[in-house]
Amino acid sequence: MGLKLITPKVLKGFRDFLPAQEIMRRDLTEKLEAGFRNFAFLPIDTPALEYTEILLGKAGGETEKQVYRFTDNGGRDVALRFDLTVPFARFVAEHRAELSFPFKRYQIAKVWRGENTQKGRYREFTQCDFDIIGADSAAADFEILLMMKNALETCGAGDATIHVNHRGLFNSFLKKLCVEDKRVEILRTVDKLSKIGREEVFALLATLTDSEKAEAVLQFVDFKGDWDSTLRMMREAAGGATPDSERLALIHQFLVDAGVEGAFTLDPSITRGLDYYTGIVCESFLNALPTIGSVCSGGRYDRLLALYSKEPLPGVGASVGLDRLIAALETLEKTAAARKTYAACALACVDEAAGGRYQALALKLRAAGIACDVFDEAKKLLTQFVMAEKRGIRWVIVPSAEGAASWTLRDIRTRTNREGLSLAELIEALTSAKETEKAAGDAASL
Amino acid sequence: MGLKLITPKVLKGFRDFLPAQEIMRRDLTEKLEAGFRNFAFLPIDTPALEYTEILLGKAGGETEKQVYRFTDNGGRDVALRFDLTVPFARFVAEHRAELSFPFKRYQIAKVWRGENTQKGRYREFTQCDFDIIGADSAAADFEILLMMKNALETCGAGDATIHVNHRGLFNSFLKKLCVEDKRVEILRTVDKLSKIGREEVFALLATLTDSEKAEAVLQFVDFKGDWDSTLRMMREAAGGATPDSERLALIHQFLVDAGVEGAFTLDPSITRGLDYYTGIVCESFLNALPTIGSVCSGGRYDRLLALYSKEPLPGVGASVGLDRLIAALETLEKTAAARKTYAACALACVDEAAGGRYQALALKLRAAGIACDVFDEAKKLLTQFVMAEKRGIRWVIVPSAEGAASWTLRDIRTRTNREGLSLAELIEALTSAKETEKAAGDAASL
Repeated sequence: MGLKLITPKVLKGFRDFLPAQEIMRRDLTEKLEAGFRNFAFLPIDTPALEYTEILLGKAGGETEKQVYRFTDNGGRDVALRFDLTVPFARFVAEHRAELSFPFKRYQIAKVWRGENTQKGRYREFTQCDFDIIGADSAAADFEILLMMKNALETCGAGDATIHVNHRGLFNSFLKKLCVEDKRVEILRTVDKLSKIGREEVFALLATLTDSEKAEAVLQFVDFKGDWDSTLRMMREAAGGATPDSERLALIHQFLVDAGVEGAFTLDPSITRGLDYYTGIVCESFLNALPTIGSVCSGGRYDRLLALYSKEPLPGVGASVGLDRLIAALETLEKTAAARKTYAACALACVDEAAGGRYQALALKLRAAGIACDVFDEAKKLLTQFVMAEKRGIRWVIVPSAEGAASWTLRDIRTRTNREGLSLAELIEALTSAKETEKAAGDAASL
Repeated sequence: MGLKLITPKVLKGFRDFLPAQEIMRRDLTEKLEAGFRNFAFLPIDTPALEYTEILLGKAGGETEKQVYRFTDNGGRDVALRFDLTVPFARFVAEHRAELSFPFKRYQIAKVWRGENTQKGRYREFTQCDFDIIGADSAAADFEILLMMKNALETCGAGDATIHVNHRGLFNSFLKKLCVEDKRVEILRTVDKLSKIGREEVFALLATLTDSEKAEAVLQFVDFKGDWDSTLRMMREAAGGATPDSERLALIHQFLVDAGVEGAFTLDPSITRGLDYYTGIVCESFLNALPTIGSVCSGGRYDRLLALYSKEPLPGVGASVGLDRLIAALETLEKTAAARKTYAACALACVDEAAGGRYQALALKLRAAGIACDVFDEAKKLLTQFVMAEKRGIRWVIVPSAEGAASWTLRDIRTRTNREGLSLAELIEALTSAKETEKAAGDAASL
C-alpha cells in the first residue's frame, strides 16, 4: 500500500497480557472478588482520570513526580489515579448521603505511576482494595485482618503471616522518647529496615535524634515475642495502657476466639511509609517466600476524608498487590498448572458447508454448560487435533462426514477415540470429564 | 485543621458507580463474559495508555480531536485508548508469533473520548469486544453474528434483530453506479439516515453525485424484503454474483441450518461510519426499543493490521456498548429488580466483645457458600434489622446473648423469626433460601 509501517510496541513499563497470562490473572481476581463478596463487601467504580487537585491534595513530592498529569482539551488540570484509596476518599465524601455506614467496599482496578521501571515494577498495575468506612472498632480492624488472611489463602500461595502494628502506639512511644517532632522521618527510616539493614538505619536515626534514642527506637522495633509479651513491651515503652494498646489486646482476643491467631504476629517494626495511617498498620508475607515483600498491606486511616469534608469518617482497609502476588506465585512455581483456555472441547470441521449444523450442535453443548470451540476449516483431522492440543483443549468432537446425529469423541491427551456417541452421550461424557478436571484442580490448589 | 477543603467532584462526562449500579454492571459483564467463554473466546488485556502514533495511525480528524493526548514525563507523545479495536490490531501484529490462528479474543474494558457530552454519551465508557482474527470465512462471520444474538439474549433485554449488510457488495453497487470515488462520503451520509431523515440524505447525496444517482442509492438502501429477495436485488444492483454476494448467501444458509434466521435481517441501509470495514457490517436493535440505536455493532475488517505489518490478517468482530445497553434496560424497566448486595445474610451484634466468635460463625457460613455480613455495634436489634433492610439483606442471624451455639433467624421481608437453630439448621435454611431466590431470579430473567 506504500504506507510507512508503524512499529507495534507498548510504552516502557506497560504490558500486554496474552491469553494464558490473562486467564491466570482473571482466575486470581475472580477468587479474590468471590472472597470479598463472601464478606458482604460491595463493589464500586470511580473514573481513571480525576482533577489533579483531588488526587494530589495530600500526597508528597514523590507522588507528584510519578503521576501522569496533563491539561485536557477543556483546559482542566487532570491526572490518572495513582492508587484507589484517594479516589475512594473523594467518592465517600461526594456520596456520603447515599451510602449506608459502616460502608464496606472493594475495588479491583488499574492504577498508573510513572516511576522508574525496575524488576517487578510497572507503570500500569492492578490493585485489589477492600475497606470499611464509618467504623472505628476492633471488630472492623479484625475483619480486615481476617480478609487479608482469606485473600492470600484463596490465591493458593500457601500460608502467610500477617504482621500487625499500631501507629498510635508507636507515636506514643516516640512522644515518651521526646522525638515526636521527628515522627514522620523516623517512621520512614524504620520502614527501610529490611532494605538497607540495621546499621544504616541506626546511623540515619542517630542523625535525626541521637545515638541513645536511635538505640531505643531500634530496640523497640527489634523486639521479638508472642503477641502478649510484645504488647506488654509496647505498653511500657509508651508509658502505660492507652486506648491504642487496649485495641490491640481486643483484636488479639478476637483472633484467638476465631481460632486464627497462628497466622498473625504483633511486629513493632511495621510502620508503612504512608503518612495517612493513624491506627493499626499491617503487612503480610508468604511463609514460602518472605523475601518478595508484603503482598497485601493496609491499615487504619481516620483522617483521610478531612481533605474534602469537615466531618471525617474513620476508615480501615488493605490492598492486595496483584502483580507482586503473581510474581510470587511464579517464583513458587504455582502457576505452571494454569489453564490455557476456558474451552472444554472443540468441534472439528469435516465439511465447510455444514457450519450452521456445527454451531447448532455447539449451542446445545454450551446450553449444557460445556464451553465449545468450533473450527471453521476442513483441514486434515490430525491437523485439527494438533490445533486443539496447542490451545490446551483436551476433547475434540468429530462429526460424521454424512452429517448423521452421531459423533466421535477424541481424547487428545490419551489419543483414544469413542465412536458413535449420541448428543446425550456426548454431553454426559464431557460433563463428567469437566467434573473430574474440576476435582483434580481443587485438589491441586489445596 | 485550618486546611482549605477540596470540593469532591468528578470530571464532566465521567462517573462514579455506586454499589447498586456497579453490581448491575458487573452482573451484565459477567453474563457477557460467560457467553464469550462459552464460545471458547480467550481474554487478553492491553494498556490504557499507548503511543499516539499507534492509536491515531489511521483515524480521521474527528477521532484526533476527541482523544486524550499528552506528553509524558519521558517526553513521549501518548494517548488514552479511544476504542479496543486499534490496540487489538497492534497487539496481534506485535504477538503474532505467540498466537494460534484463527485467534478468538474478547476484551471488556474502559475507553476514553473527550467528546461533547450529551444524554447517554460519556467521556469514559465500557466496551465489550469479541473478534476472530485470521479467518476469512462465512463460518467466522456467522459465529460473530451468533454471538451478537447470544450476548443480547443473555442480558435480558428481550428479543433483538440483527441487521446485516456487506460493505464489499455495497461498494460493487457504487462502482456500477460510477460513484465509487465518493464511496466514503456516501457511506457516511447513508449512515445518518435514521438521524436526519430521507429528504436530507437525498439532498446531501444529490450534492455529492446527482439527483438520479441519489435516488438510485436511496432505492438500494430502502429496499425491504426477506433475505433471499434482498440479496437478489443487491446482486443485480452490483452487476451479478460476486464472492461477496455468495458469502451473504452462505451465511444465510448457516443461519437457517442453525435455526436462528428469525433474528437476522439483510438490511442494505447498514453501512457503519468507520472506514476500516471491508466485509459484513452489522448492527443490532432491541425489538422492544429500536429507537435507542444499535446496542451491539461490528463487521469484517480485513486490512486493519496493514498499519503495522506487511502481511495483514483478516478479522471480524463486534462490540457491545455497555452504557447504551444499560440505558435501554433502564428505559425498559428491566433493572428494577436488580439486587443491592451480594450478601445472603447478616450476623447481628449483641455483644461487642464477641467479635471473634461472630466471625468464626460467619467463616463457617461463608465456607458453605453463604455470603455473610457481620455487624460490629451492639445497637438495638430493631435498628440492626432496619440496617439490613436498607442494604437489601433479607436474613439476619441473631446470636444468643449468652453465646450459646443456637441462633434466631429473622426474615426481614416477612418479619418472622425462627428460633433455636443449630449451625447445621442455619446453613440448611439459608442454602434453601438462596436456591429459591436463584430460581425466582432465573425465572424473572427469562
